[in-house]
Amino acid sequence: MKHRLLEMGGLAEQRLMLAVAGLVERSASRLDDVLTGDGPVNELHLEVDDRCFKLLALRQPMAIDLRAIVAAVKINGELERVGDLAVNIAEAGMRYLRHLPVKDLIDIPRMVNIAQAMLRDALDAYVRSDVTLAKTVCDRDDELDELKSQVFRELLDCMLAERGTIEPSLDLLLISRHLERVGDHATNIAEDVIFLVSAKDIRHHAAE
Amino acid sequence: MKHRLLEMGGLAEQRLMLAVAGLVERSASRLDDVLTGDGPVNELHLEVDDRCFKLLALRQPMAIDLRAIVAAVKINGELERVGDLAVNIAEAGMRYLRHLPVKDLIDIPRMVNIAQAMLRDALDAYVRSDVTLAKTVCDRDDELDELKSQVFRELLDCMLAERGTIEPSLDLLLISRHLERVGDHATNIAEDVIFLVSAKDIRHHAAE
Repeated sequence: MKHRLLEMGGLAEQRLMLAVAGLVERSASRLDDVLTGDGPVNELHLEVDDRCFKLLALRQPMAIDLRAIVAAVKINGELERVGDLAVNIAEAGMRYLRHLPVKDLIDIPRMVNIAQAMLRDALDAYVRSDVTLAKTVCDRDDELDELKSQVFRELLDCMLAERGTIEPSLDLLLISRHLERVGDHATNIAEDVIFLVSAKDIRHHAAE
Repeated sequence: MKHRLLEMGGLAEQRLMLAVAGLVERSASRLDDVLTGDGPVNELHLEVDDRCFKLLALRQPMAIDLRAIVAAVKINGELERVGDLAVNIAEAGMRYLRHLPVKDLIDIPRMVNIAQAMLRDALDAYVRSDVTLAKTVCDRDDELDELKSQVFRELLDCMLAERGTIEPSLDLLLISRHLERVGDHATNIAEDVIFLVSAKDIRHHAAE
């Protein structure tokens, strides 16, 4: 099951990278690949869910195994949504291509690299039960937030300076938010790992 | 446990309505209530999760009971995110209040009413194992999408016509997206109910 979950994570990551590559290269065909190719992620999502159910029903696992399976159900849900976000990015990317480029895309590729690394580390942390690694994932969420704010400020300036940039800028803003949400999903996974390993619920305690 | 989940749903709904009321009435104090008041939702989230674990560990439930508990874990996660979206709406609302109103807010209150009804129906469907009701929730998602597109078109016109409206319009756009996502969470809950009752996975089959 862990193997299938990693496969699911790999697919979701790949689709995310493809969506941003399609945007940066202004390639409608790559974006179209993202739009039409969510079958495998969805199939894996159902398969992992189904396996978790069967494990719960047939093995009646206790303690750490029980927590690992419930965590897998949650992580599986997070990864499925990352796949959906890749589709959302490709949709916004398609609209963006109908206009002239607003600016060089520098921060958005940075954002996708961070988001991908966070996802990968979160899944590695799950597979290896590595709480230290999981905690670094939670910390990196701030980097993504900072980049998103920077993208926002730059695009707002563009929009205020030149009304022709308003419509395409909105799609770039949307894409930066989608990438921020990928980071949120990675953080959720990392928190599930920390709970799984330490049986301590760190969620909702960030502010304390 | 169902009772606590309903309570959680009621709280999340209430915070959502309060956030939009604060926006419409331009009341910073109501928005502030949303920003500072997510403690109870977060506590319930942890409590429901904990109860589900204990039920799984101690009772070793089978078949329908097992599915009901796993569904509760998922639904609990959806409701917690609705609570987060209420906070996000209040944050955008606070920024919006720093500007003159862009337009009369008509569609956003409509959106929150639909989103709230969807949430309530999805939870009722869970408690009563009512697949028919759950299916109506999935259908209403299109209404919300339609309103969101309408909000987008109107605000884009405002932004193109008058650059002073760009910044506040961005916050209204964001709020309409947050409300659309509440609808997505309600739809996820409804799909969990359909799976729970019929043991048939309807997810990912919309396109077929």
